[in-house]
Amino acid sequence: MTEEHLARLRVVLVGTTHPGNIGSAARAMKAMGITDLVLVAPETFPHADATALASGADDLLATARVMEDLPAALADCVWVVGTSARLRTHSVPVLGPDVAAERALQRSEAGPVALVFGREHSGLTNAELDRCNAFVQIPTVAHFSSLNLAGSVQVMTYALRMAALDGVSGEAASPRATERDPPATQAEMEGLFAHFEQTLTAIDVLDPGNPRHLMRRLRHLYLRTELSGSEVRMLRGILTHAERGR
Amino acid sequence: MTEEHLARLRVVLVGTTHPGNIGSAARAMKAMGITDLVLVAPETFPHADATALASGADDLLATARVMEDLPAALADCVWVVGTSARLRTHSVPVLGPDVAAERALQRSEAGPVALVFGREHSGLTNAELDRCNAFVQIPTVAHFSSLNLAGSVQVMTYALRMAALDGVSGEAASPRATERDPPATQAEMEGLFAHFEQTLTAIDVLDPGNPRHLMRRLRHLYLRTELSGSEVRMLRGILTHAERGR
Repeated sequence: MTEEHLARLRVVLVGTTHPGNIGSAARAMKAMGITDLVLVAPETFPHADATALASGADDLLATARVMEDLPAALADCVWVVGTSARLRTHSVPVLGPDVAAERALQRSEAGPVALVFGREHSGLTNAELDRCNAFVQIPTVAHFSSLNLAGSVQVMTYALRMAALDGVSGEAASPRATERDPPATQAEMEGLFAHFEQTLTAIDVLDPGNPRHLMRRLRHLYLRTELSGSEVRMLRGILTHAERGR
Repeated sequence: MTEEHLARLRVVLVGTTHPGNIGSAARAMKAMGITDLVLVAPETFPHADATALASGADDLLATARVMEDLPAALADCVWVVGTSARLRTHSVPVLGPDVAAERALQRSEAGPVALVFGREHSGLTNAELDRCNAFVQIPTVAHFSSLNLAGSVQVMTYALRMAALDGVSGEAASPRATERDPPATQAEMEGLFAHFEQTLTAIDVLDPGNPRHLMRRLRHLYLRTELSGSEVRMLRGILTHAERGR
């Protein structure tokens, strides 16, 4: 049962520079029972360093999927948690590793859940951060917050395994994830945001000087809400009506 | 208080083969607020690989003490927990990382506490294992129990920090409740829902046969989102534009 839960989780490494880190991440994953590895535009892969540091987890490297960008890696996901040391003003929740782990397991009842890890030096871009339903921050000392990539993957996969072993407790479930009303996928969410942008342009609500500001605030609001598929359709119905007759 | 507790903990690496692992361990320790590093008969130290992988934690390498054998490293300790994947019959407790971490912090009230990590390939000898008050076993999948040395140090120092923070690890705060952007009041929320109802009527989106259905779904969606006051104003701005010109 534990292993079955963990099998639904995906680790997404974005723009990894050092192939050795990919290998170390695979090793950490495999020991903790997480096997779905997606590499978004890795700098060098495959590579002997990745295989060497995987140290027996090379089966994960062999089945890893390489994708061109983050949206492709997340399209089928129902919940996405991003790791980031630097967190600007963002209106989605910032969780500790154990709470994030528990929530990831709960959300995975409804579909794939992804943990996203950014580049070694520059992390995730704003556009990438803006695809996350929540963030996780590993608690470090204030003056030295630098975990390496493999270390972060190790901590998070450990936290996920501990949460799976504990059994999913606490918060009953995702607020609206029911069999009748499954959560929206990232692809459905992106369809909603594109629709918002189109409608808000049509009804002249976007500030021509800074159209992205309002769109980002809306993204954060709806990403943290964790909409269901039918709620997305309801909102799009409203947008369609709002635009009609302009 | 947290940092003061963690400062009493010692990481002891026994017979480490690869100096890079010493550097990675130092980095993991420093980020988690643990600074007392003892190296028992390391194969190669100091070394450029150790410094490179410490990546800013080279102060820990500079202050690390090198000792000839484990007894010297543990002489002043009041409690010693050993890490070992292979555990034969042993009559000391085998703990999970979180329980071991909690206990280590308790014991450290009385004096130095050590976490002992063995050699990369052969672990700890029987004589070394026999100096431990308890063992910690990091839960891994049955068929792949191989964490690397730096990964084990990362998990254990993380568990220690979490225990020291003592469950302060949950959600940092309500996602958007900041001084600058306080949560919406109930009155503001009701103003929003009234505005929604008025606009949705104007743009012909409410089902005349069952106008309450859509309104209830919107209430649930926005109530669980826990909007801020400024988010309410943003949404009302959009509604105002949607209605304009009808």
